[in-house]
Amino acid sequence: MISSERLARAYLSRVAEPPAPALVNFIAGHGPVEAAELIREGRATDAVLKETSARRCLDRARQDLDEAAAMGARLVTPEDDEWPAWPLLSLEVATGRGADGVAAPIALWVRGEVRLDEAACDGVAIVGARAASAYGEHTAAEFGHALAGRGMAVFSGAAYGIDGAAHRGALASGGGSTVAALGCALDVGYPAGHAALLNRIAGRGAVISEYPPGTQPAKHRFLVRNRLIAALTSGTVVVEAGSRSGARNTATTAGVLGKVVMAVPGPIGSVTSVGCHQLIREAHATLVASADEVLETVGRFGVSMPAAGSARRRRTDGLAPQALRVHEALAERRGRSPDDIATESGVPLPRVRALLPELELAGLSERCETGWRRTRNAVPNHAAERPPPRE
Amino acid sequence: MISSERLARAYLSRVAEPPAPALVNFIAGHGPVEAAELIREGRATDAVLKETSARRCLDRARQDLDEAAAMGARLVTPEDDEWPAWPLLSLEVATGRGADGVAAPIALWVRGEVRLDEAACDGVAIVGARAASAYGEHTAAEFGHALAGRGMAVFSGAAYGIDGAAHRGALASGGGSTVAALGCALDVGYPAGHAALLNRIAGRGAVISEYPPGTQPAKHRFLVRNRLIAALTSGTVVVEAGSRSGARNTATTAGVLGKVVMAVPGPIGSVTSVGCHQLIREAHATLVASADEVLETVGRFGVSMPAAGSARRRRTDGLAPQALRVHEALAERRGRSPDDIATESGVPLPRVRALLPELELAGLSERCETGWRRTRNAVPNHAAERPPPRE
Repeated sequence: MISSERLARAYLSRVAEPPAPALVNFIAGHGPVEAAELIREGRATDAVLKETSARRCLDRARQDLDEAAAMGARLVTPEDDEWPAWPLLSLEVATGRGADGVAAPIALWVRGEVRLDEAACDGVAIVGARAASAYGEHTAAEFGHALAGRGMAVFSGAAYGIDGAAHRGALASGGGSTVAALGCALDVGYPAGHAALLNRIAGRGAVISEYPPGTQPAKHRFLVRNRLIAALTSGTVVVEAGSRSGARNTATTAGVLGKVVMAVPGPIGSVTSVGCHQLIREAHATLVASADEVLETVGRFGVSMPAAGSARRRRTDGLAPQALRVHEALAERRGRSPDDIATESGVPLPRVRALLPELELAGLSERCETGWRRTRNAVPNHAAERPPPRE
Repeated sequence: MISSERLARAYLSRVAEPPAPALVNFIAGHGPVEAAELIREGRATDAVLKETSARRCLDRARQDLDEAAAMGARLVTPEDDEWPAWPLLSLEVATGRGADGVAAPIALWVRGEVRLDEAACDGVAIVGARAASAYGEHTAAEFGHALAGRGMAVFSGAAYGIDGAAHRGALASGGGSTVAALGCALDVGYPAGHAALLNRIAGRGAVISEYPPGTQPAKHRFLVRNRLIAALTSGTVVVEAGSRSGARNTATTAGVLGKVVMAVPGPIGSVTSVGCHQLIREAHATLVASADEVLETVGRFGVSMPAAGSARRRRTDGLAPQALRVHEALAERRGRSPDDIATESGVPLPRVRALLPELELAGLSERCETGWRRTRNAVPNHAAERPPPRE
């Protein structure tokens, strides 16, 4: 049994192209059910009719909800407990102040295991160029890994380059989660080359979109999507960016929303660091050179401090980042194939093949019938290292 | 024929280990000749005697001046036109505000072709780690080359690594000059491996030291020397620095002196960039990724961008309040004495004496038979293109 509010929100999520500030206002005034009815009948203000005229006769609400359910997705609306009301309030406030293009979403399509409000509560965005350098991808993966490992949720846009590396780093960690916000519908799942990655993100975190099923990716939709990444997190880290880039757009939006804007420096000759240096120099973004500095900057200093007693050196300390990621991808009992480990860790298969014997020599991995597994007593219990659950 | 002031300054430059704030004060009160006499006789305040007791019977003034002359060096004193009074005023101001270890020098031993006051007027410091990376040395050389090529004087400490690369880059350029400030005497010329470089610097710029002939290098002397590099320039660029380093000390001193502090970013994994990132993140140093950005940051944007028609700005714009008052006290025809100008402007006489040459450099005042007067027209000579002195 689908509630009338949910049906109305599903209709309203398709009736206008976001961001739709007049429609958001109209819904706030009338409630979703009445607002949907009035719009269907063409009885709304000019501004609302202008936003909705092209699609107001198209009611696929029930079908969209069914399709979403079939792919394991749900519609999260302001009427739901899961709605991240507090983070999204920044969009309302900025819109109220006259900022353009940052109206709140009407509803969010969500596929994944985490509650969106809980993820947003611990959210940090890691974004950057698609055409990233090896340095940038390495940094994004490290930051994603370290932040998720400390219980944060790593938000990004699932694009190639920095975004993908950040998600992969987060997935390779023991804790935390990762959330991908798309500029198309969940069932479209752009970019196609990241279909498997999106599945893994949904399995450990969430893939979200404000676009109803079937909506195709478009350049403006990526920019519109960026405001969600900025709004749902307490701060945005730009790892690499050219001088004009989508990542800088997300950072600018984060600034408009009053969120913390951070950028990672790089060699001054690198074109993919130009945008980061400009953000630090001209827009006063905070320079961050480590995941600890990210936590410190977003006011989560306590998260980075290891709990009492865990200060003793771990045997994985000093492992190179890729080796660490391969090690994290090993299970404790069941062996995994190098292919599986490559997929899980995001480390290329030939490197995985080279690293596994090295880890074995270091006493950190062992071969078994089904592949490779983690040496049992080499590493202290992961759960013990995680910070205590916070509100 | 050596003047008694010069002999006194030569004696005083050896009698105390710099920085010697009590001695500097004592000389300001008594003049160098009387101050030298009183100290020789042990008739000074306790603070002055404490600073001078170890060496007050050692008078090698004439010998030191002869030795300096023999190696082509000179003693530059506050009584000389060449004395960089305006830049060094920052040391007095900071000392007056209670900052430790930044007392002005008593005199400077100089070997080289440029006038020190002129070099300081266009001075930018480029400093950094001795154990620099290839990236750091390359950057220092590029910055040194580009800044000197635009007529700036590149100040540094002649150490291995970043310092040497900055000097070399400046020397390789067509214009500008470079100045090395040493933590030992000119005739000692540390580091030994840079003896040829120091000769080349003296040939195109200047090698300076506040230490009389024979003074050996010592760790504290490098730190003491750093304040001269900071004071004699309008800004300090740290190219590479570890988390605790002499370069950071220079940067901190530059900040204390109200000068611009800049740092070059680098890869976050590089230990030689850690200090730069800390300066940007924690001490709010300005990130600079190019020589143009250095010029822009020290307020020499015009130097890098010779724009037409930007002369609408009044030539006294940007003058510090006291400089403006001194300028207003000047007449257009009849020259006035510094005493009259001090009375008229209400600015203390020593400040008037320091400001008048600065205004002259900025093309705003000129000497005449009866004293100082206002420059009549905006004569487009070299001096007129210089920005007015700032506080």
